[in-house]
Amino acid sequence: MVIVMAPAGGDSDVAEVIAHVEAAGGEAFVSRGVNRTIVGVVGDERVLASIDLGQLPSVAEVVRITSPYKLVSQEHHAGTSTVMVGGVPIGPDTVTLIAGPCAVETPEQTLAAARMAREAGAALLRGGAYKPRTSPYAFQGLGLAGLRILAEVSAEVGMPAVTEVVDAADVDVVAEHAAMLQVGARNMQNFTLLQAVGGVGRPVLLKRGLTATYEEWLMAAEYIAQRGNLDIVLCERGIRTYETATRNTLDVAAVPMIRAMSHLPIIVDPSHAAGRRDLVLPLARAGIAAGADGLIVDVHAHPEAALVDGAQALVGESLAELAAVLQTMPALMGRTLAAPLPA
Amino acid sequence: MVIVMAPAGGDSDVAEVIAHVEAAGGEAFVSRGVNRTIVGVVGDERVLASIDLGQLPSVAEVVRITSPYKLVSQEHHAGTSTVMVGGVPIGPDTVTLIAGPCAVETPEQTLAAARMAREAGAALLRGGAYKPRTSPYAFQGLGLAGLRILAEVSAEVGMPAVTEVVDAADVDVVAEHAAMLQVGARNMQNFTLLQAVGGVGRPVLLKRGLTATYEEWLMAAEYIAQRGNLDIVLCERGIRTYETATRNTLDVAAVPMIRAMSHLPIIVDPSHAAGRRDLVLPLARAGIAAGADGLIVDVHAHPEAALVDGAQALVGESLAELAAVLQTMPALMGRTLAAPLPA
Amino acid sequence: MVIVMAPAGGDSDVAEVIAHVEAAGGEAFVSRGVNRTIVGVVGDERVLASIDLGQLPSVAEVVRITSPYKLVSQEHHAGTSTVMVGGVPIGPDTVTLIAGPCAVETPEQTLAAARMAREAGAALLRGGAYKPRTSPYAFQGLGLAGLRILAEVSAEVGMPAVTEVVDAADVDVVAEHAAMLQVGARNMQNFTLLQAVGGVGRPVLLKRGLTATYEEWLMAAEYIAQRGNLDIVLCERGIRTYETATRNTLDVAAVPMIRAMSHLPIIVDPSHAAGRRDLVLPLARAGIAAGADGLIVDVHAHPEAALVDGAQALVGESLAELAAVLQTMPALMGRTLAAPLPA
Amino acid sequence: MVIVMAPAGGDSDVAEVIAHVEAAGGEAFVSRGVNRTIVGVVGDERVLASIDLGQLPSVAEVVRITSPYKLVSQEHHAGTSTVMVGGVPIGPDTVTLIAGPCAVETPEQTLAAARMAREAGAALLRGGAYKPRTSPYAFQGLGLAGLRILAEVSAEVGMPAVTEVVDAADVDVVAEHAAMLQVGARNMQNFTLLQAVGGVGRPVLLKRGLTATYEEWLMAAEYIAQRGNLDIVLCERGIRTYETATRNTLDVAAVPMIRAMSHLPIIVDPSHAAGRRDLVLPLARAGIAAGADGLIVDVHAHPEAALVDGAQALVGESLAELAAVLQTMPALMGRTLAAPLPA
Repeated sequence: MVIVMAPAGGDSDVAEVIAHVEAAGGEAFVSRGVNRTIVGVVGDERVLASIDLGQLPSVAEVVRITSPYKLVSQEHHAGTSTVMVGGVPIGPDTVTLIAGPCAVETPEQTLAAARMAREAGAALLRGGAYKPRTSPYAFQGLGLAGLRILAEVSAEVGMPAVTEVVDAADVDVVAEHAAMLQVGARNMQNFTLLQAVGGVGRPVLLKRGLTATYEEWLMAAEYIAQRGNLDIVLCERGIRTYETATRNTLDVAAVPMIRAMSHLPIIVDPSHAAGRRDLVLPLARAGIAAGADGLIVDVHAHPEAALVDGAQALVGESLAELAAVLQTMPALMGRTLAAPLPA
Repeated sequence: MVIVMAPAGGDSDVAEVIAHVEAAGGEAFVSRGVNRTIVGVVGDERVLASIDLGQLPSVAEVVRITSPYKLVSQEHHAGTSTVMVGGVPIGPDTVTLIAGPCAVETPEQTLAAARMAREAGAALLRGGAYKPRTSPYAFQGLGLAGLRILAEVSAEVGMPAVTEVVDAADVDVVAEHAAMLQVGARNMQNFTLLQAVGGVGRPVLLKRGLTATYEEWLMAAEYIAQRGNLDIVLCERGIRTYETATRNTLDVAAVPMIRAMSHLPIIVDPSHAAGRRDLVLPLARAGIAAGADGLIVDVHAHPEAALVDGAQALVGESLAELAAVLQTMPALMGRTLAAPLPA
Repeated sequence: MVIVMAPAGGDSDVAEVIAHVEAAGGEAFVSRGVNRTIVGVVGDERVLASIDLGQLPSVAEVVRITSPYKLVSQEHHAGTSTVMVGGVPIGPDTVTLIAGPCAVETPEQTLAAARMAREAGAALLRGGAYKPRTSPYAFQGLGLAGLRILAEVSAEVGMPAVTEVVDAADVDVVAEHAAMLQVGARNMQNFTLLQAVGGVGRPVLLKRGLTATYEEWLMAAEYIAQRGNLDIVLCERGIRTYETATRNTLDVAAVPMIRAMSHLPIIVDPSHAAGRRDLVLPLARAGIAAGADGLIVDVHAHPEAALVDGAQALVGESLAELAAVLQTMPALMGRTLAAPLPA
Repeated sequence: MVIVMAPAGGDSDVAEVIAHVEAAGGEAFVSRGVNRTIVGVVGDERVLASIDLGQLPSVAEVVRITSPYKLVSQEHHAGTSTVMVGGVPIGPDTVTLIAGPCAVETPEQTLAAARMAREAGAALLRGGAYKPRTSPYAFQGLGLAGLRILAEVSAEVGMPAVTEVVDAADVDVVAEHAAMLQVGARNMQNFTLLQAVGGVGRPVLLKRGLTATYEEWLMAAEYIAQRGNLDIVLCERGIRTYETATRNTLDVAAVPMIRAMSHLPIIVDPSHAAGRRDLVLPLARAGIAAGADGLIVDVHAHPEAALVDGAQALVGESLAELAAVLQTMPALMGRTLAAPLPA
């Protein structure tokens, strides 16, 4: 931490700053220039941040120089971790496809989508039982009944399931039915939920908030990690910008940036980023080319009848094209497509 | 709803659209132009929205023409409602000041802030016991102990309390200790929480999400209203933009826009919008001038020692200036300052 | 400037940094902490910025601590300047209303709008002859013929004219016909144009770019100031955000922020921020309440027939309401309404 | 165009709308529902847009259903055009690399960068003589002297040159020295400049504005096309968002979206999007994978001494990696790397 004193500050102001720093257990080094005095501070930056010296009138600026997260940082663990989800890896050596219906509607619809997904190269099955919807009048998911369908289909097709949890009170029951818990974009800063999924012993898929910075996203992951769970996979799913022609703006730079900041694997969700089927394939390719450790996509056998987000679900030719890409692109990135478990 | 057919669409495509509309209980009117056919649809737009006709290849565009929210709309209740909070009104005839510490730290600090707030014109006391913080290493609030302090101070100074709830499981205990429940910006789309506060019989202060549109914000309010609770006050607290010199960008146009769209009262939070003390007064004035029904501001007797957001807390001269503004500006807007209850 | 060395950096790295700093005429002060070495730099920050030390692998971060603009800064001139426009002041003692048609269409339309504007309290006349339009198929303004109409009406009603210039080649002819030159939002970083208006000896109204930061805006003003023209008035006209219900998001915090950063006066354009008539009045009030030195609004006698932006033009009752506000609000801010010149 | 009448509108309101439509040469079709009346309009939408019926109090909404651009649309020319730049194609069959220094500084530096670029696979040489800079104190380019250096190096290495023009008055001289004229992001809505480059008979590289929508970008291209020049290549270079860790946010979805909307080729600028060298390669790969017709990147033999944007210039290993990608990825997309002309 570097503290830049205001031009008018005198010796007593500097002494006050030093006193605050030392009271918080830090060490201060003073540099006096012609116009400015600068105080360098050494110590636990997370503790020092709490003293908020920027409020002192004699302080012009406080510059943080270390990251505010720790367990999820590159400093804590260099390189990229591999997270195992029911026996399927998500990490630096593979491209892992997670696919399935946006929402679980019926056993038949879920099974059909799972089989399509597996055939296209998916090793993990997605499917929502609890759906956070902007409108209270929209389909909210089947809840527990949906979890049961998902678990049965997962067992039948041999694809560990990934599903969203929206309330801390549901974490245990969701963990009983699925191999990986998803925290959605709207809940990225639902800290109660983050702490709950941190304590349950299942890997977590943490989607980026609609306008979360990389740092806020990693801080959300740190909430989970602090409870002892480091099996966290991040998911870039597009951010909100002024452009309305696409549902969200996929920020592919998140992939190399997160790689530089954290050891957590990161995957890309081209379906929710685009909001329309014809963009899913180019965005999926772009995600892999940017270095993503996997993809999560919506698949539905009858998108026109889907209860949620049918417009972006892959089917038929669009799914076949994705399958073809997954046969060629991972090798270009020095990876292999993560193989499905035996059915 | 208006459905614009793609240029290539033929009679059978139009017939398919009509069949979908009628199956959902709607009525269709066809207009054939030289290049385009347009299908106007009449019926419950919330039901019709669920059929997602935009996915049909023969449909170029679907245009919604009624609002997707109902109970909180101007159509449901014209004008602006008045919400009573422990006997204090928030509505079109008054400017109501809610003030107090960002976080409850100690009984002494809370009492001192409450007295300062009341003297400046506040009729309601704010104070956080559960603090959603970006960093897991930051002060998270005193929880139940904080609620107890808040309730005691509230009774002592005669100011009903407003406090944040961050988990559906805490709604009952928070409702026992406070007159109004606040749902924070990060939880605006925590639908489980919205439904819980909708069922508890206390007025709700619903902050706008960091990048919520007006429509999404009103849909969040609709979640609360659907559970039978229409005592909802909206709070504009700044949105996230590219500008980083201020903590958030206060969107004062939200005040007249929400007024045109909904009957819910709306107040402004200049403290969290600005993030710095010297901006609080100009933004507070701007909020009142835009037509806000009240303000919520941070007050702290010793901001330099505050555990949360001290940089934006009012004290001394800055608070006196706000008090002076509240003596003159409400009259300009044809309102009165909402009076505190007898102590 | 403060240079934070990377953790791995050794003495030779520090020596390299010092050599670069001294070669650029700066002075370096080294602070060695346990984990980090920090180099404080004193000298002309604009020159030092050019050496871009952040590129050195041994440098973790470079922190600028002084503003990159100079002539328009508070350091150069404390307080707020008053800019005289054809005898009418824009500055800290007044609220100045600039009003008139968005575009000059005919002599009659311009004269009618000017009279309406003057009656409502305007001392300066706006009116566009060169209209930058998103579409090449939209009305582009009358050009020189429009300038002549504007100049005639200006003389007839006794209101100095403000008009936009969009090309450096037009600066002289526009300056012959108008008292103040406007640089529009889309041209805020048209540096050739900024330099041209800096050399012509007329006050300049510089609108904020659609996504300009405060600092970029002041840097654009610095381009003008560098050519010897310090008669610059800034105009906040709304920024682009994700919210599409309003045309732009009026950032009222720009008023106190610019006040703290610069001595240039700042006015607010509620018409272009809102894009709809019913928002103009609340946003105009909010602008004055935030401390703006004036307003610029669109007025048209027949908005439904206006060739540009009729939806936001004031007329009849909406204009009368603005006039009423201008009779009362300036006093609240310790100002007077700038009086029109004798007709 | 579809006009939705307000609920309260009566027959005379509908008649007024029809009269306006017919006066503008359009044809109107009325659909009366139970609650709403809808008027479908057929005719030249660009003309009809000018009547702005949304202003009538009886009109609730006006919905445009055709694109406001024409010459650059898919309707005007299906598929993707190929633009020839001094004999080098940019179009659907190739991936074309444009590379060179951000700014021309000296003949030696430009020649060194050009040779590096050619060796890495570039067929076209970039290099700026006129540099639009945020700060008036930063290096502004060598101007005419820079153009001459660029032209000489271009001839020597056999790479047609692409260079920016910032003022309509410079268009002719720039066209004499370069094979392709670039319009930068800050000038995307400098309509005078667009019209000037539309008339000069050289292909144009049109960068996306910092916060331009796809539609605004295509409208800017339409300004050029209207003057008879359809040799336009679009360049996605990142947009401004709230995320500050990267210089801009590269919007790779722009590539397939523009493909669906327009026949103009589109390339990607990973250097300016990222602002840092380590992101250039992943973003370049992502751009190609999204379907871009080419890349434009900064190259400098001594980035640490570059006068502009050295932090993002490729050199040594980073350039070799890009060269390797260009040997493999185009084939994956069914393309070839555009070959350099004979030296």
